[in-house]
Amino acid sequence: MDQALRQGSIIGILGGGQLGRMLSVAASRLGLKTHVFEPAADSVAGHVAHELTTAEYTDSAALSQFAKSVHVTTFEFENVPASTLDIVETHSRVLPGRNALAISQDRLSEKEFLQRLGLSTALYANIETKTDLAEALSRVGVPSILKTRRFGYDGKNQVRLQTIDDGLGAWSMLGETPCILESFVPFSKEISVIGSRSGTGDIAFFEPGENVHRHGILHTTTVPAGISAGERRAAFDVISKVMNALDYVGVMAVELFLTPDGLLVNEIAPRVHNSGHWTQNGCVIDQFEQHIRAIAGWPLGSGERHSNVVMTNLIGNDILNISSLWNTPGVGLHLYGKSEIRPGRKMGHFNRITGPA
Amino acid sequence: MDQALRQGSIIGILGGGQLGRMLSVAASRLGLKTHVFEPAADSVAGHVAHELTTAEYTDSAALSQFAKSVHVTTFEFENVPASTLDIVETHSRVLPGRNALAISQDRLSEKEFLQRLGLSTALYANIETKTDLAEALSRVGVPSILKTRRFGYDGKNQVRLQTIDDGLGAWSMLGETPCILESFVPFSKEISVIGSRSGTGDIAFFEPGENVHRHGILHTTTVPAGISAGERRAAFDVISKVMNALDYVGVMAVELFLTPDGLLVNEIAPRVHNSGHWTQNGCVIDQFEQHIRAIAGWPLGSGERHSNVVMTNLIGNDILNISSLWNTPGVGLHLYGKSEIRPGRKMGHFNRITGPA
Repeated sequence: MDQALRQGSIIGILGGGQLGRMLSVAASRLGLKTHVFEPAADSVAGHVAHELTTAEYTDSAALSQFAKSVHVTTFEFENVPASTLDIVETHSRVLPGRNALAISQDRLSEKEFLQRLGLSTALYANIETKTDLAEALSRVGVPSILKTRRFGYDGKNQVRLQTIDDGLGAWSMLGETPCILESFVPFSKEISVIGSRSGTGDIAFFEPGENVHRHGILHTTTVPAGISAGERRAAFDVISKVMNALDYVGVMAVELFLTPDGLLVNEIAPRVHNSGHWTQNGCVIDQFEQHIRAIAGWPLGSGERHSNVVMTNLIGNDILNISSLWNTPGVGLHLYGKSEIRPGRKMGHFNRITGPA
Repeated sequence: MDQALRQGSIIGILGGGQLGRMLSVAASRLGLKTHVFEPAADSVAGHVAHELTTAEYTDSAALSQFAKSVHVTTFEFENVPASTLDIVETHSRVLPGRNALAISQDRLSEKEFLQRLGLSTALYANIETKTDLAEALSRVGVPSILKTRRFGYDGKNQVRLQTIDDGLGAWSMLGETPCILESFVPFSKEISVIGSRSGTGDIAFFEPGENVHRHGILHTTTVPAGISAGERRAAFDVISKVMNALDYVGVMAVELFLTPDGLLVNEIAPRVHNSGHWTQNGCVIDQFEQHIRAIAGWPLGSGERHSNVVMTNLIGNDILNISSLWNTPGVGLHLYGKSEIRPGRKMGHFNRITGPA
């Protein structure tokens, strides 16, 4: 993109869930329209988008039409098929680029990429055959986690191994697809650092937050994370290194483990991230707006926060028990408008301001 | 409404400008959809609404269909024709009620209503004939302002009188329609107080802000307004009295003049208001969300602010000169996505956080 998008320009968004929904709202704040592409019916991003295309990611006619209608395309999740991108990129620039997608779609590529950058990760091993599995178990040992290389999220497609004997059964449970075995990291804290990078290479950071998970799903993010100044600087260094290496444009989240040996990179997400939802009530410019600014060719905003915040997810039936939150001072509710409650489904979140920053 | 609207319910909005747009965004934050009804093409509220009907306010078929599709209807401006409401109300509850609309549509009804409540206003006189005009000029005198009783906003349809002799020409300029003559109030400050009232009679306030106008259009609102504790309490009393008298449901703005004799009521607006835009960056729950909560039958949120804010409107070409605002820390931009710049047209606004509250 050579220049900033003008008022009324259209941002294409692949994926119509809550992240696409909140990206749409941020785009509207900047005078931009959105066109959402989503296979499933009743897309919650579609509720607030200017246009919605409901079609499969393999529907090349629909994809072409979508891509021709927009000025730039982004995505709300990392599992966009490469064949989908092939079609969209014929007509529209896709940001952040497909190299970031490719790397984050495969846990092995991601780990190898991080290692090439000199960043620390858990000890891991690639598994494609039974022989690989045996080798991995002997090298990585237990406790460890067996994860499919692709399509994992929210604790899905992974199994914790307590003994070496668990290995074979676990791999069979995961369909004997390519996996990696990761050493379990005895971390003291998991933190997220969220950064944004513009097309001209400017970078802005949000304050790192501490994440707590329940049943493999993010439960709370607390900002600030309660880390040392050195750890905070190190977190910013890690994400800068990753974004610069990818010539990245947009918002990225990096999950880090705090260990006695320093920071380990757990995962990178080439998109806005659940652990950045606190920015909606803690910052003037939230992660969604930063992402839109970056991909629209506009200057990034300041990532500074005015308030400290605890973000809590509303999962499944949690949304039925929020009456006490409605008028609690300092609590901002964010509900996604999903018509059906399902166990483990993200239905909304709330941000509680805990004081000025 | 007997109970709170459920996730996915549809709010109808009459009027598709920037206020409807920001109401739509607030509704989405609470998991609700919107259906916007607007006569003009390219409605900026339509960009973010789930549904948009483009039709005249006299199109009864379109109005009926609109009203049947929604769970409750509200409006973004006070000049909705009574005949439009007649049709909409056949199928959908309209909140705030039509009594509030009727009163605010006619400056004479509004002044008489305020007087009945024992609230102070500028000295005024009704003018329907030349005889009325002569009487008004002798009773109210100059300096004064001649205003049409209906369809005035942003300094339109009003003329300042410096001498008694200006009267006849001014009335002729205004088409000799029914007018009121208002004594010019030598105020030290104009403030806005914004309140919200739920269907169960609960009331929440936002901190009053000081308004500065340029060429008859709001230029800045500064919060807090720099008034005494007594004046602040008096402002809350005024708006409570007005809302309770109307059994009002939703957000209301009251413009007040600070004078040596105390507060005078300038105008009431039965809707979200430009002078409340600061709440988007100063509060967890902004005026738009409070309005949606009230009309959706949900508990009001706390009106407390976390930050002090100066809101500045971007009028006409102002929007071309905002490059310095993009990355100024503490500045939140809100652009309306209007494709055409016109002199005097509200194109956006920005909120600058000046410190913690």
